[in-house]
Amino acid sequence: MTLLDEDRLFPSDGRSRDLARALFATVRDLPIVSPHGHTDPRWLAENNPFANPAELFVTPDHYVFRMLFSQGVRLEDLGIQTIMGTEDPVDPREVWRTFAEHYYVFRGTPSRLWIDHSLQTVFGVEKVLSAKTADEIYDKITDCLFRLEFRPRALFDKFDIEVIATTESPLDTLEHHAQIASSGWNGRVITTYRPDVVIDPENPDFLENLKAFSETTDEDALTWAGYLNAHRKRRRDFIAHGATASDHGHPSARTENLSDSAAQDLFASALRDPADPKIAEAFRAQMLTEMAKMSMDDGLVMQIHPGSRRNHSHSIFNKFGTDMGFDIPGRTNYVEALGPLLDVVGHEPDFTLIVFTLDETSYGRELAPLAGVYPALKLGPAWWFFDSPDGMWRFREMITETAGFYNTVGFNDDTRAFCSIPARHDVARRVDCAYLASLVTSGRLSETDAFELAQDLTYKLAKKAYHL
Amino acid sequence: MTLLDEDRLFPSDGRSRDLARALFATVRDLPIVSPHGHTDPRWLAENNPFANPAELFVTPDHYVFRMLFSQGVRLEDLGIQTIMGTEDPVDPREVWRTFAEHYYVFRGTPSRLWIDHSLQTVFGVEKVLSAKTADEIYDKITDCLFRLEFRPRALFDKFDIEVIATTESPLDTLEHHAQIASSGWNGRVITTYRPDVVIDPENPDFLENLKAFSETTDEDALTWAGYLNAHRKRRRDFIAHGATASDHGHPSARTENLSDSAAQDLFASALRDPADPKIAEAFRAQMLTEMAKMSMDDGLVMQIHPGSRRNHSHSIFNKFGTDMGFDIPGRTNYVEALGPLLDVVGHEPDFTLIVFTLDETSYGRELAPLAGVYPALKLGPAWWFFDSPDGMWRFREMITETAGFYNTVGFNDDTRAFCSIPARHDVARRVDCAYLASLVTSGRLSETDAFELAQDLTYKLAKKAYHL
Amino acid sequence: MTLLDEDRLFPSDGRSRDLARALFATVRDLPIVSPHGHTDPRWLAENNPFANPAELFVTPDHYVFRMLFSQGVRLEDLGIQTIMGTEDPVDPREVWRTFAEHYYVFRGTPSRLWIDHSLQTVFGVEKVLSAKTADEIYDKITDCLFRLEFRPRALFDKFDIEVIATTESPLDTLEHHAQIASSGWNGRVITTYRPDVVIDPENPDFLENLKAFSETTDEDALTWAGYLNAHRKRRRDFIAHGATASDHGHPSARTENLSDSAAQDLFASALRDPADPKIAEAFRAQMLTEMAKMSMDDGLVMQIHPGSRRNHSHSIFNKFGTDMGFDIPGRTNYVEALGPLLDVVGHEPDFTLIVFTLDETSYGRELAPLAGVYPALKLGPAWWFFDSPDGMWRFREMITETAGFYNTVGFNDDTRAFCSIPARHDVARRVDCAYLASLVTSGRLSETDAFELAQDLTYKLAKKAYHL
Repeated sequence: MTLLDEDRLFPSDGRSRDLARALFATVRDLPIVSPHGHTDPRWLAENNPFANPAELFVTPDHYVFRMLFSQGVRLEDLGIQTIMGTEDPVDPREVWRTFAEHYYVFRGTPSRLWIDHSLQTVFGVEKVLSAKTADEIYDKITDCLFRLEFRPRALFDKFDIEVIATTESPLDTLEHHAQIASSGWNGRVITTYRPDVVIDPENPDFLENLKAFSETTDEDALTWAGYLNAHRKRRRDFIAHGATASDHGHPSARTENLSDSAAQDLFASALRDPADPKIAEAFRAQMLTEMAKMSMDDGLVMQIHPGSRRNHSHSIFNKFGTDMGFDIPGRTNYVEALGPLLDVVGHEPDFTLIVFTLDETSYGRELAPLAGVYPALKLGPAWWFFDSPDGMWRFREMITETAGFYNTVGFNDDTRAFCSIPARHDVARRVDCAYLASLVTSGRLSETDAFELAQDLTYKLAKKAYHL
Repeated sequence: MTLLDEDRLFPSDGRSRDLARALFATVRDLPIVSPHGHTDPRWLAENNPFANPAELFVTPDHYVFRMLFSQGVRLEDLGIQTIMGTEDPVDPREVWRTFAEHYYVFRGTPSRLWIDHSLQTVFGVEKVLSAKTADEIYDKITDCLFRLEFRPRALFDKFDIEVIATTESPLDTLEHHAQIASSGWNGRVITTYRPDVVIDPENPDFLENLKAFSETTDEDALTWAGYLNAHRKRRRDFIAHGATASDHGHPSARTENLSDSAAQDLFASALRDPADPKIAEAFRAQMLTEMAKMSMDDGLVMQIHPGSRRNHSHSIFNKFGTDMGFDIPGRTNYVEALGPLLDVVGHEPDFTLIVFTLDETSYGRELAPLAGVYPALKLGPAWWFFDSPDGMWRFREMITETAGFYNTVGFNDDTRAFCSIPARHDVARRVDCAYLASLVTSGRLSETDAFELAQDLTYKLAKKAYHL
Repeated sequence: MTLLDEDRLFPSDGRSRDLARALFATVRDLPIVSPHGHTDPRWLAENNPFANPAELFVTPDHYVFRMLFSQGVRLEDLGIQTIMGTEDPVDPREVWRTFAEHYYVFRGTPSRLWIDHSLQTVFGVEKVLSAKTADEIYDKITDCLFRLEFRPRALFDKFDIEVIATTESPLDTLEHHAQIASSGWNGRVITTYRPDVVIDPENPDFLENLKAFSETTDEDALTWAGYLNAHRKRRRDFIAHGATASDHGHPSARTENLSDSAAQDLFASALRDPADPKIAEAFRAQMLTEMAKMSMDDGLVMQIHPGSRRNHSHSIFNKFGTDMGFDIPGRTNYVEALGPLLDVVGHEPDFTLIVFTLDETSYGRELAPLAGVYPALKLGPAWWFFDSPDGMWRFREMITETAGFYNTVGFNDDTRAFCSIPARHDVARRVDCAYLASLVTSGRLSETDAFELAQDLTYKLAKKAYHL
C-alpha cells in the first residue's frame, strides 16, 4: 500500500488519462526551477539537520496550523510561540500527535497531497497518518533526520533543484547567501529583492526601517534622492547575490505615476504621517512605478502579489503577530490600478512585470485581457489558496483562451516548507499535463504542440521569464 | 418509462460513475435532517389534505412562477393574489394547464428535477408533464390528495424526516408547533428564531412590529434594554419549541461592534428615523453582533443569509408584495463586513456562525479562507439560485481546497414546497457522492475516506452543526 | 492530415461524446443566422476580391494583432497604420510571415480554432501555419482570392448565411445596404442601429456628430425634442434597410428614468460640458431608457454591450486610435444599473432587451436571476473574450439553472472577420451540443428534449429574439 495514487490528478478515464500520463512521463524528471519561494537560506548555508517532524511539517506551515485552528486546536498547543514568548515549550511529539489526530480534516485539501507526498517520497512512510500511526511515523521521520542524506543540501540534490530563489528584505545582510556561495557547494540559491518593509508606511516599523536602510546603504534614506539611491544600491547587492527579480506584496495593485517633485512631496508626507492610509496607499503605488523604472536600468524582473487583507483577527495579531493564517483575500482591481505603471513601462520589451492574484474573478475579466496585449505583462501561476489542483485548473481555463500560454511564466512553489517543494512541482506538472491532455482530446490542440508545451510550462517559461 | 434517470447527477462514464453509484447506495436511505427550511408548520399541525396540484406545485414556489412570468405568463393567471385581493380566483386546473403548457421552459433547471422527482416518487406519475398530459396528471394527483397516505404527516413519515426546522418571526405565536407537540404525533418539527421584522428598521412595519414585540414579551421594546430583553425572552420561548438556531436575512453581511451606549444611541436613531438607510444598515449590523452575544448565553446556532436585493420590480412589489421572485443577488463583501462580529465571538469554540452567500465569487476569495481559520465560522451549503447540481458542485470545488469538508454543515433544503424536500436532499446526496468519487478517481482522496465523508456530508455534519 | 479534429469540442470519451456527435449531426448544416456582427457591408455591396491573406486574417482582427503585440511584435510591422498615416506600407507577405512565425502563441486560443477552420474549410489548407509553411500557404490563399468563388457574395452563399446584420452609426448613409438591395442579389444583409457616437458625450466628436445628425435628419439635434426626433427618423431609415435591432456599447449598464424636463436639462448640460464624466454617464443612462421607449413604438430589439474600459494604453491610443486591442473589461453591476429601465419597460411582453456582459461574475449572481423573471430581458451569448469554448460552456453552466434556455437568444458571431463567421458558428454549435449531451448523460435532460433544444439554440431562438 502507498499513500499516493500513481495517476493522481489525471483525468479519471479514457483518452485524456492516457495522454496526461504520457505527457507527464516526459516532464516528471525535469529539474526543479523554483524562481519564487520563501524557504530559509540558513538551512542550506548551515546544512544542519531539521529538528523534528513537528518543526518540519506543522509549525512553519500556515496552511496546516490555520486549518487545525479552525477545528478548535489552540495555536499554543501546536508549539506556536506568542510575540512575548510567554508560552511554555510544547513537546514536539505532542504537537505531532495533535496534528495526526486531526489529519482527517485535511481531506480534499492540497496540504494533504503535499504532506502525503513528502511522507512517502522523502521519508518512505506508507501508512496514513492518524492518531494510531502518529508515534510510529514520528519515530520513522526522526530516525531519518539524523542521517546525512536528510540534511538540507542532500535533500536539495535529491529534489533535483536546478535553482531556487529565496526572498529577503533590503535590511537583510544576505549572509546566508554569501556563506553558500563561499562554501564550495554548487547548489544555486539566489535571493529576491523584497522591499515591502521600507516601502509600506503602514508597517509599524517603517521609520525605524528607513534608518536601518540608511545605515546599510550609507545613504540618507530619509530624503527622496537618498531613499531611491538606497534602493538602487541594495538592488545591486541583491543582484550580486544572484537576484534576478524583485517581489512586492501590497494590499492592492494600485500604481501611480507622479512627477518627481510630487513623488518627493508624497515621500515627505509619508515620513510625517506614515499611518495615514491614503498617503500610505499612494506611496506604495508610486513606489511600484519607481521599482519598475529601476528595473529598466538593472534588469530585475518585477513581481506584484496584491490583494491580501492581512491580520484579520486582532486578537491573534496582538498575541501571535503576523503570518498566523489570518491573511484573507479581498476584491482586487487591476484595470485602473495597473494603468499608471503600464503607461510608463508596459510597452517595454525588456521589462517584465509578473502579476499574481488572490481574486480569481480578475483572471478572465482583467488579467488575461491585460496580459494578452501588454508586452511587459505576464501572469504568475495560481497563488496561495489557489496553489492547488482546482486552483491551477481554473487558472488555465480562465486565462488561456485570452492570454494563451506564452504570457504565463511556469510554476512558482512559493513555499516555506522545504519538503513540500517537489510535492508542489509534482502537482503543477500533473495538472498542466491533464489540462493539455484535455485540450488535445477535445480537438483544441495537437499532440505535438502538447508535448512541446509540457516542456515549456514545466521548465522553459520559468527560466525565460525570470532570466535564469 | 420513468421521468427519472436512476443514475442522474453521477459522472457520465467510467470509474467515477461506478464509485458515485456505490457511495450513493450507502446514503440514499439515510433519514432526512432538515435544519433550515420554510415549510408551513400548520400543515403538520392540522394535517389537512393539500388542496390541489396547483397549490402544491405552482402557487407557493417562487422558482416556478418567476420562470413562468419571465416567459410572459401573468401572475394573475397563476392564481397569485394581489395585496388588495382584487383578483378573481382562478380555477386551479387552469393554472395547472398553463404550467404544463410551459413546462418545457424548465429544461435544465433544478425545478424540473425537483418536480419530476415529486411527480414520480410521490404521485407515481411516469409521463412528462405537457399540455397533452396536463389533465391526466392533474387528476392523478388530485386522487392521491384525498387519500390518507398523502396527508402531510403521512408524507413526513414516508419521506423519513428525522427532524425538520421551520422559520418563525418573534411575533409568531408558535401555536402550530405547540399543537404538534401536544398532538401525540411523534414527528420532530422545530422552529427557528428569525427576528428580521423587529431588527430591520427599513421594514415598513418596524415600529408597529416593535409594539407587538413589546406586547408579546411584556417588555418595553422601545427602550434598548427592553428591546434586548424581549429578544432574550423570545429566544427562550423558541428554544422551548425546539429551536436550536436563529436565522438572519440581511441585505449585506455587515456587522458592527459598538459600545453599549453607542448601540443604545443607534437604536434611538433607528426609532426616530427608521427609513434612513445608513442608520438602518448600521443597526442591522450591530444587531448581528448582539444576536451572536446572546447565542453565547443560550446556545442558539446563528445563520446569516445576506446579499439579496429584495423586490427589484417596483410595480410587482406594489401590486403583489414581497417574495414574488424579484429578489436579486448582488455583490457581497464578507472580509471587512464580518470582522467586527468575529472579533467578539469568532474564536469561541462553543459558538457557531453559519454563513450562506448568493455571491459565488466570495467562496474561494473570502468565505473559504475565513472559515478555514475561524473556529466559530462554518459555511452553509449552496443557497437559493445555487441550490442546484452545478451550484453545489461549484460550492465544493471552490471551498474544499481551502476550508476542507469539516468547516461545512451538510445540506439545507431551504424549501417552501413540502414535496420537494426529498427531491432536494436526493440532489444534494447525489452531487456530493459524485464530487467525492471524482476526488477518489483523480487520486485526491482514498475510497475509505470517501465512504466516511458521504455519511458526514449527508447526515452527521448537519446534526452536529445544528446541535440536533 | 487535416488541421481540424472532426470531433473537436465534444467530450473526450464515452456516452457524452457519442451523443454530442449525434446532436451536432442534426444542426451542423442548418443555415447561419447572424443577428449581430461587424463585417463591412461594402464587401457584399461591391463584391470585390479580398486583397491578400494579411488583410483577410491579420490586420482587421484585433484578437490576432493584440496577441502578437503581447509577444513583442510591433503593430507597425503588422501593417497597422497610425492615425497620422505616417507609416510606410508593409509588404503583406512580410506581415503574413511574422504572423506565421508567431502562430504557436495562439495555441489554446479560439483564434487558433477559427483561423485553422477558415484555412482548411475555405482555402483547403492542410498544413499547420508556421515559419516553414508561411509562403506556401500565402500563395495558396492568394491564388484562391483571384477566383470568382472566393468573392464575398460567393462566400456568403457557400457559408449558407440566411441573414446577416451589420452595425452602422446614425451618421452612416447606409449606401452599401441600398446598393445590395438594388443589386438584384438575393443575400439578406440588414443593418443595426448603433447610435453611440451621438449618445456618448465623452466621444471627442460628440458636438460635431450632433451637427451631422441634424443635417442627416433635417432636425435640430441640438434641442432635446429635435434630438429625439432625429433618433426616431434614423431608426425608421434603418428599419427601411432591414434593421430589427439597435445596439448600445456603453462603459456601464447604468440606466436612468428621468422626467422629460430633467432629461432635457441633462441634455443641455451635456451640450455645455460634454467631457464631464458624471454628466456623460447620466446622459448615456437616460438615453438607454429613451431608446427602450422608442423600441416600444417601432419594435426594434434593443442590445446592451456594457463593461469595456476602452483604450487602456494612452500611447497606443494617441498613435493608433481606437480598437487596437486595448479595450479591457471591468467589473459591471446590473442589478441596480438596469433597474430604472426595467421599471419602465421590463414587464412589456412586446419589448426585448438583450444584455451581454464581459464580467462573468454577473451571470449567476445578477443576470440569470434578472432574465429568469423579467419578461423583456434576455441574455446575449458569451461575448468577446468569452466567445470561446470555455466561455460558452461557463455561460451555459452559470445561467441555465436559473434562467433556463428560453431566456437566451442563440448565438451572435460579433465578428469583423468575414471568413471566421462559419468557424464561430461551428464552435457555438459544437459547444452547445456538448453541453446538452452532458445534461442528458447526467440524467438532467431527456434525449428528446436535447434534440429539440439543439435546433432552438442553433437557429430558432435567434430568429425569434431578433424578429428575423
